Amino acid sequence: MNDLSAQAPKAAQAGNTVTIVPEAEIAGLMTPEAAFDAVEATFAAMARGDAYNFPVIREAIGHADALYGFKSGFDRESLALGLKSGGYWPGNEARGLTNHQSTVILFDADTGRPSALVGGNLLTALRTAAASAVSIRYLARQDAKVLGMIGAGHQSAFQMRAAVQQRSFEKVVGWNYHPEMLSRLADTAAELGLPFEAVTLEELGAQADVIVTITSSFAPSLLDAHVRPGTHLACMGTDTKGKQEVEAGLLARARVFTDEVAQSVTLGEAQHAVAEGLTSADDITQLGAVINGTHPGRTSDQEITMFDGTGVGLQDLAVAAAVVRLAREQGVASQVVL
Amino acid sequence: MNDLSAQAPKAAQAGNTVTIVPEAEIAGLMTPEAAFDAVEATFAAMARGDAYNFPVIREAIGHADALYGFKSGFDRESLALGLKSGGYWPGNEARGLTNHQSTVILFDADTGRPSALVGGNLLTALRTAAASAVSIRYLARQDAKVLGMIGAGHQSAFQMRAAVQQRSFEKVVGWNYHPEMLSRLADTAAELGLPFEAVTLEELGAQADVIVTITSSFAPSLLDAHVRPGTHLACMGTDTKGKQEVEAGLLARARVFTDEVAQSVTLGEAQHAVAEGLTSADDITQLGAVINGTHPGRTSDQEITMFDGTGVGLQDLAVAAAVVRLAREQGVASQVVL
Repeated sequence: MNDLSAQAPKAAQAGNTVTIVPEAEIAGLMTPEAAFDAVEATFAAMARGDAYNFPVIREAIGHADALYGFKSGFDRESLALGLKSGGYWPGNEARGLTNHQSTVILFDADTGRPSALVGGNLLTALRTAAASAVSIRYLARQDAKVLGMIGAGHQSAFQMRAAVQQRSFEKVVGWNYHPEMLSRLADTAAELGLPFEAVTLEELGAQADVIVTITSSFAPSLLDAHVRPGTHLACMGTDTKGKQEVEAGLLARARVFTDEVAQSVTLGEAQHAVAEGLTSADDITQLGAVINGTHPGRTSDQEITMFDGTGVGLQDLAVAAAVVRLAREQGVASQVVL
Repeated sequence: MNDLSAQAPKAAQAGNTVTIVPEAEIAGLMTPEAAFDAVEATFAAMARGDAYNFPVIREAIGHADALYGFKSGFDRESLALGLKSGGYWPGNEARGLTNHQSTVILFDADTGRPSALVGGNLLTALRTAAASAVSIRYLARQDAKVLGMIGAGHQSAFQMRAAVQQRSFEKVVGWNYHPEMLSRLADTAAELGLPFEAVTLEELGAQADVIVTITSSFAPSLLDAHVRPGTHLACMGTDTKGKQEVEAGLLARARVFTDEVAQSVTLGEAQHAVAEGLTSADDITQLGAVINGTHPGRTSDQEITMFDGTGVGLQDLAVAAAVVRLAREQGVASQVVL
């Protein structure tokens, strides 16, 4: 009955080695610096046209209230090819698991065979933090001193840690819809040796030189009138139709950059300003163009710059490829034959 | 520098076990019977609305002339969730690898964590063969005696082996665009203890009770006039816009069934008849409806039935889930912690 061996394709005999990097190993291998470098290189490759994201699959599967899908892409320069698969399982916390679950699978671009299976939960947090940090490096005023944080969920700590590496910040101010969660921002600032102040949105806009928003809100928190000239904003929370962190008018006033224009105008922070006719895809620039030097980025100390960070599959592939390299270099990569 | 441990999400500590079923193990584990049962159950679940395929991603990546992508879906009844990833790498044969490369990744529908990584090359051949076999079981005349094979590539042997299990076939007749390849059909028929005859398309249509087409042609081989009343056709080769195996007029004359109507009318064999106005999605029935008894299937010995097999992700998930079960039962599943 089990006599199919003669029919097995040649590749079966050849064997193929897949590197496994478990979720629990990522923290010991990956650094915010490596994540920064990976995301910076990816944005640059995207803007050169050397890397592109495939269409996103995102499905409400009708089981466990889960959202499941894939983000995927290919970078012709680094040869990173593959996908991040996973989604949001709201019942996981009751099981002691994180609700957001991610796994990255990398493929050999020369043969199509899988090359690595990598836990993607911490990597997702790091690549999202790295994206706002890259925007701060290229777009914030050099003399920025005060970092404003809007949102105090799990991801906010990652964003703050990555952001403070980019300028000589002297203080963090923060606001959250649920004030009782602000202790996360206070604790993270303390860990980073920075004073923290809980403020109103008006105060936040009046003090901050750089503002990072990382909420899952469906109505704007920060208003146009709150924001001073010269501010840089990294809006990192909006990744779905309907979500919104800042008033649409702010996008008309700001010079807007993004990871991927197509996502920015459809499911990113820019979706609302586009729908209201306040801006369009033509007004929005890939951050990679600034990295590549083909766009000047900020042109004055009075300009408001904004990065609309929507999150793309190529970021996931880039940080996963980086952690696979680190695991191999450090001799901690395990391998299976597939 | 590597001090991210405290930031690692809870799931990192919990660990997660992923079952690995290497390509080389599949032949010893999987049977055509198990593939048949898996595909039959999947088609039935699709027709009940319990299982659905997500949009297909298919990209010419601009490297190694490769086509790369994903087929994916979810079966709410079996809880099969995941994707088949891979594609077509035309340079692989020169490296001693198969050009078609597939890997299946299954996920736990309750938590979103990966549960299995399975070599998908042989499984793809088996599930494609199983699909035409399921169509023969439910649609061919009970007294079918002659099997006609159009196409003599690698996959043709799988199709023939699966087909002959479904009726008391006494003979195989075959045609191929390149006659020098017909030895594959002759050898496979000999292996199955059946006489084989190489014939013209006219002769094939005149003799065969069941016809399986498995070519990658972009122009019709089999014409409407070749086919006798009472024939069942399983058209398995057309999975892309532009491909075509049989004359469009044949679909107007036949009762047409398919795995997924949306694929049938856009990239399956039915695409041409639909474009010519000879049939429409409303005239095409999911094969699963016949399995479920909600559609009568063949209604007379004179009717021509046709199965337009386009290939769906749920088939891949079903056979992969089956082989994972077999590997666990037989104690040959290896596991890695991710």
